[in-house]
Amino acid sequence: MRDVAIVGAAMTRFGRAEVSLVDLICLSALPALQDAHLGDRRVDAVVVANMGGARINRQTAVASALVDRLSLYPAAAETVENGPASGSSAVKMGFQAIASGMADLVLVSGGEKMRAVDNLEATDFVASLTHPQVEYIYGVTLPSLAGLFTRLYMERYGVTAEHLAMVAVKNHENALKNPFAHIQQRVTMEGILFSPDAVVNNPLVADPLRMFDCCPVSDGSASLVLASLDLARKLGRPIVKVAGIGQATDTHAVQERKDPTDLLAVRQAAEKAFGRAKLAPKDIHVAELHDAFTILEIAQSEEAGFFPKGKGAKALEKGTTSLTGKLPINPSGGLKAKGHPVGATGVAQLVELVWQLRGEAGERQVAGAKNAFACNFGGFGNNVVATVLVRED
Amino acid sequence: MRDVAIVGAAMTRFGRAEVSLVDLICLSALPALQDAHLGDRRVDAVVVANMGGARINRQTAVASALVDRLSLYPAAAETVENGPASGSSAVKMGFQAIASGMADLVLVSGGEKMRAVDNLEATDFVASLTHPQVEYIYGVTLPSLAGLFTRLYMERYGVTAEHLAMVAVKNHENALKNPFAHIQQRVTMEGILFSPDAVVNNPLVADPLRMFDCCPVSDGSASLVLASLDLARKLGRPIVKVAGIGQATDTHAVQERKDPTDLLAVRQAAEKAFGRAKLAPKDIHVAELHDAFTILEIAQSEEAGFFPKGKGAKALEKGTTSLTGKLPINPSGGLKAKGHPVGATGVAQLVELVWQLRGEAGERQVAGAKNAFACNFGGFGNNVVATVLVRED
Repeated sequence: MRDVAIVGAAMTRFGRAEVSLVDLICLSALPALQDAHLGDRRVDAVVVANMGGARINRQTAVASALVDRLSLYPAAAETVENGPASGSSAVKMGFQAIASGMADLVLVSGGEKMRAVDNLEATDFVASLTHPQVEYIYGVTLPSLAGLFTRLYMERYGVTAEHLAMVAVKNHENALKNPFAHIQQRVTMEGILFSPDAVVNNPLVADPLRMFDCCPVSDGSASLVLASLDLARKLGRPIVKVAGIGQATDTHAVQERKDPTDLLAVRQAAEKAFGRAKLAPKDIHVAELHDAFTILEIAQSEEAGFFPKGKGAKALEKGTTSLTGKLPINPSGGLKAKGHPVGATGVAQLVELVWQLRGEAGERQVAGAKNAFACNFGGFGNNVVATVLVRED
Repeated sequence: MRDVAIVGAAMTRFGRAEVSLVDLICLSALPALQDAHLGDRRVDAVVVANMGGARINRQTAVASALVDRLSLYPAAAETVENGPASGSSAVKMGFQAIASGMADLVLVSGGEKMRAVDNLEATDFVASLTHPQVEYIYGVTLPSLAGLFTRLYMERYGVTAEHLAMVAVKNHENALKNPFAHIQQRVTMEGILFSPDAVVNNPLVADPLRMFDCCPVSDGSASLVLASLDLARKLGRPIVKVAGIGQATDTHAVQERKDPTDLLAVRQAAEKAFGRAKLAPKDIHVAELHDAFTILEIAQSEEAGFFPKGKGAKALEKGTTSLTGKLPINPSGGLKAKGHPVGATGVAQLVELVWQLRGEAGERQVAGAKNAFACNFGGFGNNVVATVLVRED
């Protein structure tokens, strides 16, 4: 298997986009290509992660359209969809194209323009990934599944509403240092939990989840340029190796899992990624986890192996996962505050980590970060992709 | 790069499906897995080709759902979309997973349930792959683009309405020998062209294209099991090697091509596939071409290198491409008569070719077929995937 490196990274500021889906993707693809210092080299393939083009934006074959807008023909082009983990899946496809020898240089972009529809339709759209016969038909949405999951987690592991709010406060604080984050707003425990106004500032969404426990609906795109390690060395850019990608699936319906608080696919995906990278959780200096809901950051920090099961909230409370802690989690602001354009998210997690590993993360730089980890959580945990990146000195 | 073989193949009869999209895909995936004689071996990854799930069937993350229905977890799973070439793109992704060493055994399924909506919406849906600003907005559909393309081709290369009808007559005749074909109806030149009833039997769709020049709107699924060549040898099944995959993109808008009758991406994709397979067009014994419209079979037979440009219609007229001719094209009945469930088509082309190379094609068997070629035509020729399969003796 050939080694693969990331040689270019860029993203748009997440939020509301006024351009078309394809143009929105160009807005990160072009700077990512520039960032790679390719000279007159051309990409062999383009992989685009997108979930809602067909339904929300009435645009299919988005990858072919992107090739056209950037004049990248005759590059191969495909769109990959894996729910909210589409981004990492697209990176995996780009990785495999290079690792197999079918390509030397691949552009991987993720993009979503979800605010083209109202929040109710966006929520219904995302819910189309749930089980149609035993979940969707009964009105299940992702926030409702996350609410049930959170309640169970609180009862079983002593996680409190304060712990959930701490995730939001931390990630919004980080986002203030990230010019690409959708929500740039200071959030305090007082404002979203303790003050008499909290019930208005932070209304209930799906008990016990409140608004500040849920990611916003965002537009945005993110792009990476992947190259064979041999080619990457010639480009003269700092080298960030894709050291390991792991993926695992689980039952579609959450109710069919023996223990719904057990995120088996996260554990399996992380183990595979670490195994391929020949690293362990203790070797990681910075992580981006899929905090579409606050509880997920806590749960994933345990299942990925950073903390024992049930101890993630305690680590959060002690500041271990803060920007200045031992293992900063979601320095970008996470999905919570950076935003969650579903197709873009997995790519954007890796864009942040590339910047961190290159020392280009500005005010939110994690000092000395050399090994990084990302967890991209598809479905409600039924298709998870974990990625380990390593800076090569 | 590791060699890859196809060890299992199956498809549903195309037509109208009464089951859900995911169940429809199971109906080919299960027999394909059985066909591969896997014993207790499990697939490492699942790739699903689908274009319309999100919009037509309100089902996203179809690959994860398929893993669940077949209890294939923790296998990796992704959905791949590349317009009408989605099927071959999914096969390419499965190929790369194995070639890279990330997987040994991959299930590749393509499925589409287009008849869940009426023909007008299905046509509008497929048109969402055209250029939004310079094509779609002006009411362009795939039949209208094909009509313009056909007129130009007729003027330039002396192709006649009779030639177009000959493609339909040939492919419908082949489909009568294919129990998996959607339309099982004998079609004659008299009936669709010369008789006074022809104008009723075969109404104009987009001048000069008539109904029998256009593929039907179909539901259906097709599946392949891919294995590393080493593993394939252990399974004891006849071995069909994926000898070469080539892909090329072109301008999104047809109007931007210097010569719209020049299907550059078909030529480039075929050249790459032949180059990787170390074979030439003259070595091919049977081909499946993407005859969504009759003219496309003629044009692709030229661009793929089987006949000189402008000579495809003559070869057809002489019977060269008939089932008993020197190079049978579309023994399955092609998209024209077998049907065209967009996500399934590219996979189904290869299912037919696997059957042909194994000598399992029944009444439509091409004697002694050892090398086969498929052209899967995405967009209006702006993303084309060509595949060469070789039977290993």
